[in-house]
Amino acid sequence: MRTLPRVVIEPLVRAALLEDLGRAGDLTTDAIIGADQTATVQLVSREPGVIAGGDCARLAWELLDDRVRVEDLLPDGSRVQPGTVIATITGPARALLSGERVALNFLGHLSGVATGTATIADAIAHTQARVADTRKTIPGLRALQKHAVVAGGGSNHRFGLDDAVLIKDNHIAVAGGITPAVRAARAHVGHLVKIEVEVDSLEQLRELLDIGADAVLLDNMDADLLREAVHLIAGRMITEASGRITPTTAVPLAEAGVDLISVGWLTHSARVLDIGLDHVPR
Amino acid sequence: MRTLPRVVIEPLVRAALLEDLGRAGDLTTDAIIGADQTATVQLVSREPGVIAGGDCARLAWELLDDRVRVEDLLPDGSRVQPGTVIATITGPARALLSGERVALNFLGHLSGVATGTATIADAIAHTQARVADTRKTIPGLRALQKHAVVAGGGSNHRFGLDDAVLIKDNHIAVAGGITPAVRAARAHVGHLVKIEVEVDSLEQLRELLDIGADAVLLDNMDADLLREAVHLIAGRMITEASGRITPTTAVPLAEAGVDLISVGWLTHSARVLDIGLDHVPR
Amino acid sequence: MRTLPRVVIEPLVRAALLEDLGRAGDLTTDAIIGADQTATVQLVSREPGVIAGGDCARLAWELLDDRVRVEDLLPDGSRVQPGTVIATITGPARALLSGERVALNFLGHLSGVATGTATIADAIAHTQARVADTRKTIPGLRALQKHAVVAGGGSNHRFGLDDAVLIKDNHIAVAGGITPAVRAARAHVGHLVKIEVEVDSLEQLRELLDIGADAVLLDNMDADLLREAVHLIAGRMITEASGRITPTTAVPLAEAGVDLISVGWLTHSARVLDIGLDHVPR
Amino acid sequence: MRTLPRVVIEPLVRAALLEDLGRAGDLTTDAIIGADQTATVQLVSREPGVIAGGDCARLAWELLDDRVRVEDLLPDGSRVQPGTVIATITGPARALLSGERVALNFLGHLSGVATGTATIADAIAHTQARVADTRKTIPGLRALQKHAVVAGGGSNHRFGLDDAVLIKDNHIAVAGGITPAVRAARAHVGHLVKIEVEVDSLEQLRELLDIGADAVLLDNMDADLLREAVHLIAGRMITEASGRITPTTAVPLAEAGVDLISVGWLTHSARVLDIGLDHVPR
Amino acid sequence: MRTLPRVVIEPLVRAALLEDLGRAGDLTTDAIIGADQTATVQLVSREPGVIAGGDCARLAWELLDDRVRVEDLLPDGSRVQPGTVIATITGPARALLSGERVALNFLGHLSGVATGTATIADAIAHTQARVADTRKTIPGLRALQKHAVVAGGGSNHRFGLDDAVLIKDNHIAVAGGITPAVRAARAHVGHLVKIEVEVDSLEQLRELLDIGADAVLLDNMDADLLREAVHLIAGRMITEASGRITPTTAVPLAEAGVDLISVGWLTHSARVLDIGLDHVPR
Amino acid sequence: MRTLPRVVIEPLVRAALLEDLGRAGDLTTDAIIGADQTATVQLVSREPGVIAGGDCARLAWELLDDRVRVEDLLPDGSRVQPGTVIATITGPARALLSGERVALNFLGHLSGVATGTATIADAIAHTQARVADTRKTIPGLRALQKHAVVAGGGSNHRFGLDDAVLIKDNHIAVAGGITPAVRAARAHVGHLVKIEVEVDSLEQLRELLDIGADAVLLDNMDADLLREAVHLIAGRMITEASGRITPTTAVPLAEAGVDLISVGWLTHSARVLDIGLDHVPR
Repeated sequence: MRTLPRVVIEPLVRAALLEDLGRAGDLTTDAIIGADQTATVQLVSREPGVIAGGDCARLAWELLDDRVRVEDLLPDGSRVQPGTVIATITGPARALLSGERVALNFLGHLSGVATGTATIADAIAHTQARVADTRKTIPGLRALQKHAVVAGGGSNHRFGLDDAVLIKDNHIAVAGGITPAVRAARAHVGHLVKIEVEVDSLEQLRELLDIGADAVLLDNMDADLLREAVHLIAGRMITEASGRITPTTAVPLAEAGVDLISVGWLTHSARVLDIGLDHVPR
Repeated sequence: MRTLPRVVIEPLVRAALLEDLGRAGDLTTDAIIGADQTATVQLVSREPGVIAGGDCARLAWELLDDRVRVEDLLPDGSRVQPGTVIATITGPARALLSGERVALNFLGHLSGVATGTATIADAIAHTQARVADTRKTIPGLRALQKHAVVAGGGSNHRFGLDDAVLIKDNHIAVAGGITPAVRAARAHVGHLVKIEVEVDSLEQLRELLDIGADAVLLDNMDADLLREAVHLIAGRMITEASGRITPTTAVPLAEAGVDLISVGWLTHSARVLDIGLDHVPR
Repeated sequence: MRTLPRVVIEPLVRAALLEDLGRAGDLTTDAIIGADQTATVQLVSREPGVIAGGDCARLAWELLDDRVRVEDLLPDGSRVQPGTVIATITGPARALLSGERVALNFLGHLSGVATGTATIADAIAHTQARVADTRKTIPGLRALQKHAVVAGGGSNHRFGLDDAVLIKDNHIAVAGGITPAVRAARAHVGHLVKIEVEVDSLEQLRELLDIGADAVLLDNMDADLLREAVHLIAGRMITEASGRITPTTAVPLAEAGVDLISVGWLTHSARVLDIGLDHVPR
Repeated sequence: MRTLPRVVIEPLVRAALLEDLGRAGDLTTDAIIGADQTATVQLVSREPGVIAGGDCARLAWELLDDRVRVEDLLPDGSRVQPGTVIATITGPARALLSGERVALNFLGHLSGVATGTATIADAIAHTQARVADTRKTIPGLRALQKHAVVAGGGSNHRFGLDDAVLIKDNHIAVAGGITPAVRAARAHVGHLVKIEVEVDSLEQLRELLDIGADAVLLDNMDADLLREAVHLIAGRMITEASGRITPTTAVPLAEAGVDLISVGWLTHSARVLDIGLDHVPR
Repeated sequence: MRTLPRVVIEPLVRAALLEDLGRAGDLTTDAIIGADQTATVQLVSREPGVIAGGDCARLAWELLDDRVRVEDLLPDGSRVQPGTVIATITGPARALLSGERVALNFLGHLSGVATGTATIADAIAHTQARVADTRKTIPGLRALQKHAVVAGGGSNHRFGLDDAVLIKDNHIAVAGGITPAVRAARAHVGHLVKIEVEVDSLEQLRELLDIGADAVLLDNMDADLLREAVHLIAGRMITEASGRITPTTAVPLAEAGVDLISVGWLTHSARVLDIGLDHVPR
Repeated sequence: MRTLPRVVIEPLVRAALLEDLGRAGDLTTDAIIGADQTATVQLVSREPGVIAGGDCARLAWELLDDRVRVEDLLPDGSRVQPGTVIATITGPARALLSGERVALNFLGHLSGVATGTATIADAIAHTQARVADTRKTIPGLRALQKHAVVAGGGSNHRFGLDDAVLIKDNHIAVAGGITPAVRAARAHVGHLVKIEVEVDSLEQLRELLDIGADAVLLDNMDADLLREAVHLIAGRMITEASGRITPTTAVPLAEAGVDLISVGWLTHSARVLDIGLDHVPR
């Protein structure tokens, strides 16, 4: 499992801490908990799922107080059950309480993304298809969400507008067809940039097969049409099915033989994974 | 409807644009669309819901190119149906396409939060209760999400650890009871800071009623217990029901007579509102 | 005493260091002091006062060179006399000298705020009133200044426009009276937001008592009028006296029976506390 | 009068606005004032003084809402009397009220610095001496405070550790004397960097005159000793008197014939200039 | 020609302006030039070359003063001769002078990169090879330098470690061979990420041809060996020659039939293009 | 040798790491190298030169992973030959590989600046002249480049527009002559700011000698004219020769007797120093 470097996640965790601490810090904890009190708590899953974002949670506590120790942290991608201990955290009680919400907000959201991904990945495990994310992400969290998708067993689509070409219907319309659009893209981009083209009919697909591309996005096709398209492509391009796919609709599409099904739902509508923080008595 | 000042949202929109444009910008659009081409597009809802985040969408396009004009933007809080036009955008075709995803990511997510809020608000409209948010928000987006909750007809709980006191079970345990915890908080905070205390039994509630507070969070109580608690309180404190409440479980709790039901689901598990961008032919 | 988290103060200390080091660093020290030389210095008060900002001073040196050790740092809120040692600092001589001015600028200013606050707090200690700050703070330093006010024995008013409602004369004028203004505010804000209203006459006060509020700001009233107002309010609201109050004028106002006297002077016109850095011979 | 470029002041004004608006914005104004209401207000001085920071005040309002118009703004350095109108501001009433405190905090503090400077400058106008600032500034505001000192008729000392050499007692002690310290500095710095040396006795001064420097800081000398030092120097170096100088002690020192008296009080203990915002009836 | 969005370049231009203006701004210009004086200047090339960075130069002046007008700016990629006017700038004389150096530093450096690229591109125009950049860029300026390479007629290699796989000798050594390294990469990355592998012998190349890849980097091969490698590859992979290539050594390598020659020299050792700012008399 | 404080260089190193890691991190290394593998590498010079930027290289690795140890790092200013080991780095193999390019980009560029400076410094070592830099620097890197110039044996000119006055031809033209320009500058700036004036003829020089200044920039004069100017000045001002000076043209100008020759080429056209990273077998 890939680890996001600390230089990448630290600015996000700092921003989240400042967002929660505001200008006056944790009024409640500062009033009630002594500066010298220490405690031990555990992150415990309340439901089955897949963990992601452990490093963000750890960093939230460490940035609050460098005396906090986060131990036995399950690596991202770990499967958990209700009651599974994800990490044990020891340190000043004030820091443990003040950092709780930020740590849980990262961990719960990203584990939710990972768990949703795993749900689909498991459902299509009998096919050759993999589930992929999209650019339909929560603003500011794209790197983390895409990391969580990998933790859940999914595959990453483009990270942005700049690391691959994806020619969509509007581009085709302006360019006057698939052929001129692909030619313009080829002339424009470097040799390590792949080109994918969105088509919504077999007619468009045939035009694309003539000019060629690295991948094709088969948009809003039902399973039958998809199967026919895959047959027509015959391995000459990577095939991706897309278009408002949900866990429910994913399986027949994956069984149609595509390489990828891309699902905005993974990141734009992720449900939180319910994780709690339990006090560990001495 | 309150408007978030541009100085508050601009850094978030800039970060989202940079996240999507990366280092090389929109390879596809730059290759295929001419710098001089202009177009008109419309934001159109694909399903019923409540709009929030319109200013973020507008700013995404305006920051890309100051020649873009966003017109007839529905104010946040507007109810939409499938086909409702949310805004009409005119300008350089490159900017319209390059900004589309960032604009939609803000608008879809925040409208999803507003719509989820409205679902519950509508369901409990026959009671005196209002639906409120929590601090269980997506890191970095708290101000925007809480703004969307208001757009959906909800009420805002604390914005952070610093604008109100909320004494929870861990605080009570360390302080040695509700009474010393409340006293410590009162001695600590300024005169404009309210104090709310979490209780999970009538016994705790009675102790709290003796010492007093501005509000009480009745945690994980069923409707019957809640009703009894409300009766006991008799208007001496604001009453809030909380604890893994979903749209399904909200109604009986609201009918128990509390002032507020607070729901993490509004912000930690919001489903996107499906909004599309349609090309307007000349 | 509350401690501001490092994530809150670190950006301010970094900015201050960069402001002083500029682009070329400490020309004088780099030219004259060897990189291997070490030294020990002490922060010593030159006059009586109350300390605040010790963590900022420590961080200034630690960020310059992580080999610096700041020991026996008096906690914020400590009373000092001429000659009191506030901390002992050991480390590379270059870092000690290069960080001196930034450390002293934070410590001197914030201790000045704390000391000014303590002056008034001491003068009104025989009354029930507490001295409170305002939003009349030095731009960028509000969190630190309000922390210093607490260190000096004062109480914090609002931290910003967003954590409490304060209805002033202009709001009342536009709303068409106190009653509609209070009603609009109540309908607008969450259940943990207190509402305070500014009145400048007993007539206004009577209108406010009818509609009710959490607190009242009695603006620019002399001690006699204030006493009458307090009598009229009879404990139904928190009472705050305000309006160009200075250490000289504070006492009779406090003796009029209000809960708080708020004083912009604490933060907008604070005099530095004279603290020096003494070399400790080996 | 020099104008600080917008790129320099804009980050400071943005930070101050965010500090005041927090996460939820101006609760009071948003609740009570309609989005369409407009108003006109005036910045009016309540006491005699010198204006500085007008651009910061203007920018505070303009960044909140670009429809605000700030007109007839007195240039920094202008002398005002009670009642003098400093600027007239027209625009959305919400923006006028929400930006008021930030605008006044900049304007009041910086005009206070300018006014304090002018007080001393006026008092020593009959001498050849000018009043200068120091690096004893409020963290984060050095550029603005030094700008205000110039507005008040003062002169700027070093802006930081990197734009001039100032050899102090600690440097001399480590270097083993004035002569080796000056030699080390000369060997180290570029040709456009001036060297000033602090001396506290005529003996040290004589050593310095032998090796030479651009300027001498005569530390904590009384008027008689200062006069003798100036006589000894005989125009060979710029002369600066320093050491806890206040408006009261400045005059005799200036009359001793030095070129500059430097005064930390200008910036570390500035009193606010009382400026108000008056509503202009239609 | 692609245009870098303003949101991408603005932070770099702001940083460069702050770096030059420091804390006190342009002392010379502010002292000598009146605030009301206006002027017209022209950017004029002093030598033949290719322009890049025009938008940065324009933004430098516009951010200093929004009254500056930059007109007839040659688009990036334009060829210039000694005396060619690149743009005409009119506005307040202070802003024109204060922004001159920052504008020229961007324009001169980036035009130097473009011109160096064009030199090689022209020299190999008779071959099928294109000249490409590397990640050997000046820290902080990668996006701008790669933009300049395109302006000069070159092609972009990877923008960073995250938008393509490039397996180098160290990776191969650790993985235990080319085959396992390629397999690990394929299993790890998304479907839009290309894989390139560095080989330095025909033996390694044969191993790579068996496992396959999108592109091959032929490292430090002379023209003869390169020709043999190209023959062996027979169009099955994109071919890139690399290894301390200079304008002098580029031609024979390009003539060996590779698709790309990548040249760190373009960005790590670019010579400035000599561009001056001429005053235009009225 | 002066050391730039970590607070100054850390933001630049972080920005460079983020620029290279992008949103997904090092795809190649994460795929192929295990998280537990460790390695030792060495920075080795491939050609003769002078080192600068060692702290930036070290920080690049340390910020990626705090387990990395950089040992035996040659101090900036060290002379190296082909094969000289500059530092030995041990730690997780992933961090060593992922940080390599950023470390080398800083070290190679800054050592290139230092080496170019040393080339001229060596060539004119028999004269009294020193080689100085200019403000013709790479945007964002001025502090580092000027540090590298000192490492190479050069001297620093102004760091920006704010730390010295340099009156150029445009200023003189607007002011109506050298005399009024110098007078305006003197009246404007503080006592620690030096004034240098650019002249391009003996006639201008004579006017300047009458009014006086700290330094004179003799612009575009040949060696003979320069010698005459130096004779005329007779030590009354610091003398600087300037104007498109290259290593080739520097010597005769230095021999003409000036104190400084300033060379934009040092920073605007620096060639990289070829430094490699060698794997150290166990």
